Amino acid sequence: MTSGGMYRVDAAKLTDFCVQVFEAVGVSEEDARLAAIILVESDLRGVASHGVAHLRRYVDGLRAGTIIARPTETVLAETLTTVTLDAGAGLGPPVSHRAMRLAIQKALTAGVGCVAVRNSNHYGIAGYYAMQALPYDCIGLTTTNTSPRVVPTFARSALYGTNPIALAAPAGEEPPYVLDMATSVVAQGKLEIADQLDQPIPLGWATDSDGLPTTDAHRALDELKRGAGAGLLPLGGAGELLGGHKGYGLAVGLEIMSALLSGAAFATGVYPKDEQGRPLPANLGHFFAAWRIDHFRPVDEFKADMDRLQRLLKGAPKAPGQERVYIPGEKEFEAKARYRREGVPINSSVMADLRIVAQTVGVLFTLA
Amino acid sequence: MTSGGMYRVDAAKLTDFCVQVFEAVGVSEEDARLAAIILVESDLRGVASHGVAHLRRYVDGLRAGTIIARPTETVLAETLTTVTLDAGAGLGPPVSHRAMRLAIQKALTAGVGCVAVRNSNHYGIAGYYAMQALPYDCIGLTTTNTSPRVVPTFARSALYGTNPIALAAPAGEEPPYVLDMATSVVAQGKLEIADQLDQPIPLGWATDSDGLPTTDAHRALDELKRGAGAGLLPLGGAGELLGGHKGYGLAVGLEIMSALLSGAAFATGVYPKDEQGRPLPANLGHFFAAWRIDHFRPVDEFKADMDRLQRLLKGAPKAPGQERVYIPGEKEFEAKARYRREGVPINSSVMADLRIVAQTVGVLFTLA
Repeated sequence: MTSGGMYRVDAAKLTDFCVQVFEAVGVSEEDARLAAIILVESDLRGVASHGVAHLRRYVDGLRAGTIIARPTETVLAETLTTVTLDAGAGLGPPVSHRAMRLAIQKALTAGVGCVAVRNSNHYGIAGYYAMQALPYDCIGLTTTNTSPRVVPTFARSALYGTNPIALAAPAGEEPPYVLDMATSVVAQGKLEIADQLDQPIPLGWATDSDGLPTTDAHRALDELKRGAGAGLLPLGGAGELLGGHKGYGLAVGLEIMSALLSGAAFATGVYPKDEQGRPLPANLGHFFAAWRIDHFRPVDEFKADMDRLQRLLKGAPKAPGQERVYIPGEKEFEAKARYRREGVPINSSVMADLRIVAQTVGVLFTLA
Repeated sequence: MTSGGMYRVDAAKLTDFCVQVFEAVGVSEEDARLAAIILVESDLRGVASHGVAHLRRYVDGLRAGTIIARPTETVLAETLTTVTLDAGAGLGPPVSHRAMRLAIQKALTAGVGCVAVRNSNHYGIAGYYAMQALPYDCIGLTTTNTSPRVVPTFARSALYGTNPIALAAPAGEEPPYVLDMATSVVAQGKLEIADQLDQPIPLGWATDSDGLPTTDAHRALDELKRGAGAGLLPLGGAGELLGGHKGYGLAVGLEIMSALLSGAAFATGVYPKDEQGRPLPANLGHFFAAWRIDHFRPVDEFKADMDRLQRLLKGAPKAPGQERVYIPGEKEFEAKARYRREGVPINSSVMADLRIVAQTVGVLFTLA
């Protein structure tokens, strides 16, 4: 363990561990490998909230049967440019990888490809799927709905998810542009960290069950989890003064693109429970799209402009106390280069979870 | 004139006036009608900042030759699903109407249609184009780049535009969902209103040339117009604490989709000037997309879900002091119904501009 209760684990070793865990609970070799790669990719990119920290929840779902280990994926509709897929309530990452690959294949043939997925689960790091388009000189886009944690503008309880959007476009000499953002001000993970450290959160991250912005992470989380109101605020914050209605409006649009276009459950309908309060399969929806750049203009010209745009932004005069202007995705590429060398950082709480997972499913634990 | 210096003008009369003005400066009958309808539609929807308040600027551009009255529109590339159009430096609204129509035609044939436009000008109200998709049971999307007014996260001068996104999806019994938002916290128009009223602006709308958030609308506007630094803040505000990097990152993505995919000018490159400081044609870029819903799932099911989603959101418990939760586009539909009955509100400053325009181009002024 290094300082601050942080372990460092080799990415390949961490991936292999996740593969073994998934296979131990009945997931196919291909899906186990895909899910493992995508989880670890999130940790590598410095997005620990969507990485192996989710493994325990995934395994719990697989063991409880709310996530199906060997799902039947069904093509519900298909045209030259579009596919609607039923994911069969399996793990989110493998079907999402396949759905994005399908969107890219369609794009390579027809210029644009779009795949809508229903009956799926948490798909992890959105940016991974958007980035699948990059080696094919395509622009990649994805969005998903998630469990209801965000409060609509002027409301007082969480009705829809942090609904992320990811968009990736290739550059020439510069790294690709990779946007990967939740449409709430922050993800729930940031409240959980503040709660663990017993620190106040900035006004504008969350509201309490009275419908008022709060600095009390513990209260907001507790009320949110109990379904007692409260929740995260949309990008732009509470009300309309700083544009909260824009974050809210955008998130509703992404709910439509991911869940209503595919026919998935939406808003408070995801993560349903049975009459005894036991969780039922989630039925999340995702959307994937790819555009073949050279159907619009020569790729070399596009990439040269991407380089110019990035250099212009990075070369901007800096705000007081700031040394860099970042391109979306830049921090994550730097994290990945570093964590590949130095190992993936895993905090002690997640490491304890991974140990429990290993014991539960009967896999040898050699990570720490 | 009614109270508060506000005139009310019949929408049809206002449209006819704009048509006459455009025709008087050499615009074709078809383009004059389209540009007029789209400007007035913005006023009708309560978005006065993108309505006939722009007529004078459009006419100035047409007279100066930075906007071409009879542009040659050229198809640079076309496939079953995609088109790249050179707008020939004409007015933004007519070519944008045609581009969206083309995207819809492609979508009706192929499931998805995408049109990228370069060498265009200010296109007015983005939501209009997204909404063109609705009668065809398609989802519509558009985005554009604009003149550089927004400061990237951690920078201190404006480098890119308010880059709006509009997304529209049809519902059943409820009105359609219509998102139409700039990706800055507010548009420049809000600073101009505060400046005229000599009122402070909320901290978080704009920064000054020192790169610090300011309440001084006059200073921020003055510095922005002089190119002395300063500018609007991205949705989420300054820095990363409240998600400003998300608004910035999203806007860069929309710059890519609208300007880099089409091959238009971008960031500080739009609205170029010659060596004598005289404005040259703008070369803005737009992007239009349409998805045919029934290629993904039956339209009736989609619309029924749209109704359910809207009712769920509207029925949410309200925050203290709030009586309604709005669906994106709802306020605009209500404004349109009202302004159709009562006339379009035109403030005295815009009315004075319209009078000057009429005199300049030799059209009889009968609006006030």
